[in-house]
Formats: sequence, structure tokens, C-alpha cells
Amino acid sequence: MAVGDSDTTPDTAPGTRRPGGRTARNREAVLEAALELLSELGYAATCVQDIANRSKVAASTIYRRWGNRDGVILDLAQTLVAEPAGALPDTGDLERDLALLGQVIVDVMSSPRGGVVQSALVAAGVDSPTARKTLAQIVNRRVEDTKLIAERAIERGDVPAGTDARHVINTLAAPIYHRWYIGGERPTTEELHRYARVAAHAARSGLLS
Amino acid sequence: MAVGDSDTTPDTAPGTRRPGGRTARNREAVLEAALELLSELGYAATCVQDIANRSKVAASTIYRRWGNRDGVILDLAQTLVAEPAGALPDTGDLERDLALLGQVIVDVMSSPRGGVVQSALVAAGVDSPTARKTLAQIVNRRVEDTKLIAERAIERGDVPAGTDARHVINTLAAPIYHRWYIGGERPTTEELHRYARVAAHAARSGLLS
Repeated sequence: MAVGDSDTTPDTAPGTRRPGGRTARNREAVLEAALELLSELGYAATCVQDIANRSKVAASTIYRRWGNRDGVILDLAQTLVAEPAGALPDTGDLERDLALLGQVIVDVMSSPRGGVVQSALVAAGVDSPTARKTLAQIVNRRVEDTKLIAERAIERGDVPAGTDARHVINTLAAPIYHRWYIGGERPTTEELHRYARVAAHAARSGLLS
Repeated sequence: MAVGDSDTTPDTAPGTRRPGGRTARNREAVLEAALELLSELGYAATCVQDIANRSKVAASTIYRRWGNRDGVILDLAQTLVAEPAGALPDTGDLERDLALLGQVIVDVMSSPRGGVVQSALVAAGVDSPTARKTLAQIVNRRVEDTKLIAERAIERGDVPAGTDARHVINTLAAPIYHRWYIGGERPTTEELHRYARVAAHAARSGLLS
């Protein structure tokens, strides 16, 4: 779906209840402009005036509706949360499913949209509790969307009942994020396999209840 | 040690070879001011002009010597890398040592100095390859300084020979950073114990070679 093309988004700002009207078109233009600028200039260099110039929406309108740059980025992030997750790996083997999921996480991080917005939230989140909350919400939503991988392993009896499926996903995801945002490098396939092996082994050993 | 009080720091900028002189005093004042402002205002809101006002060093001098705000933050970070690590836990049990180390990592993240600078680097690193490199350097240095914990476990025969001690430390550290910078929350003691258990178990099972 294109950024901001949902007319069903709740919108309580005064004077904005015109689905498909100028307000909706403005929102779409602003979010698209913000995404482009984040990709081109990075988080620190993207400012409201640039977004206004690119989107042809007045800066005063942007400040009124979104408050500031981070408000625009949070709105952009919300459109990502609303997107449906893709099909989950289901090979019948937890470790193999986790390795495939790890690849999907890396692909999202490196994608022009997901990666740019997520990185901007990580940067914004260092200062802003609201951005931290949005980032946590996005990541938790992805955990909820993918924990079925671990639940299937529990159903198959490969992993003890009482295992917390979210811990399994987080045990895989944590070293991927760590490698990317702290180590500054994209995890290699070999590393992804090691992370999947550690997470699957911890789950099977009953350490993730 | 106080920020920037080392006169032995290599300094190759022209006209700066006066240890203990005005240049050294300026550096100390600028780094202290930057640290204070990062603590008070956060990364995004800290700018060179504020640092100049607080340190009473001319903005033009700061631009000439450090290039920009991130240059100051990187220099500040370098003073942290140069600080010696504290005594390592040595209980004779890998899992217990790792849980204690996890507490130290959390303490550094929540400390006024380490936490503020590290968070600023995470934010800066989203856009800047130089900041990413400095952050990775700081974190890798800490891994090198603490991997003795895992090496002792190898020597005791608790963990198979051929285990990579750095992988053991990173398996502990990754979920701590993930919880903090992505989940937006300080890990609880219970979580730290789980992370330590998973890392120690993976090491003992020979998964971290």
C-alpha cells in the first residue's frame, strides 16, 4: 500500500474529517516526502522545511498537524505497523524457520521503506519517549505476527509447553539488531544461522519459559 | 578521570601542540559542555552554538577543530574508550559471572556519562558511518575487556575449547542492548538472568565456536 493512502485512519485533528479530500492528499504528500528525504538525507538532516518544500504542503500546516519532524516520522511508522506481515516460514523445523525469519528481519532493515523509518525511530528514540514507544510498538507487533513459528514448535512437541513464544523470537532478533545498530554491520548468513541455532537450542532446552 | 584531562592524547591539528596550554583547556571545556548538554537536552537538541556558549570557546574554534557536533561527540566517546574497565566478576561459574556482567552493562547504560554518550552515538550512527564505526569500536573494546570471563570458563573446562569468547559476551550483551534501544526499557533482573542462562548454555553446548 502507498504511504498514507488509507482513508480509514482515525484522525481527530480539527477540520480534518474529509476522507479523500485535501487533508488526506496532504497527509499522503507529506509522508511520501518525509520517506524520500529520510532515504536521501538521513534522519538528522531531514527538517520540516524540507518536507514542506518537497510535499508542497505549507510548513505551518505540517507544524499544526504533526507538531514537528518526529511527529511526521511517527505517523509514517504507524502506516508501516498497519501493513500486513508476509507468509511465515513453516519448514517443520524450528531452527530452520528461525534462520529464514532472521533473513526476513534483515531484508526489512535493508529495505528502502522499513529500514529508513526504523532507523529514524532508533535515532529519534534516543531522545524521545514517544519515538521509543512507537518503535517498541512496531517491533512488538512484528513479534506478535511471527511468534506462530515458535507456537508451531510447541504444538509439535519440539519445544516444552510453557515456552514463551515471544522470548523465542526475541532471542533470534536481539543479536540481529545488535549487529546492525550497535556493531554497524549487516549480519552474515553464517551469523544468522548461529543466532537461529542458539535461539532454537535455548527454546528446546526449556530456557525460554 | 575528568573528560579530556589527558595531555597525552595524540593531537595532530595544526597549532595545537601545547599540552596543558589553552588548547588542552579548550578541549576539556568543550567536551565537558557537550556531555552536560547531551544529558540535559538530548542528542537532537544539542548544537555547536550551545556547546560554544556553555564552554566559552568560540563556535568558530569548535568548527575548525571538530568539524561539527558529531565530531565533538566522537572525541568525547574516545575519552571513554581510553578509560580502564573495572574488575571483572570471577565467581567460578560462567552463568553467574555473565549475570553480574549484564548488570555492569546496564549500569554503564544508565550512568550519566556512559549512557548519554553511547545513546548519542547510537542516534548519530543511524546516519553517520563515522559514528557507527566509533560506536562499534567502543563496544568491541568492551567485549575485548570482558571476554576473559568466557576464557576462564574454557580454561576450567566448563565450555568446549574452540569456543569464541567474544561470541559468549555478545550473546549476553545483544538482548540487553535490544531491550534498551529497541524495546525502550531497562532490562529487569529476571531478564538479565535469562540472558545469562541462554548465553552460558549456548557456550556449554558448543554453539559459540
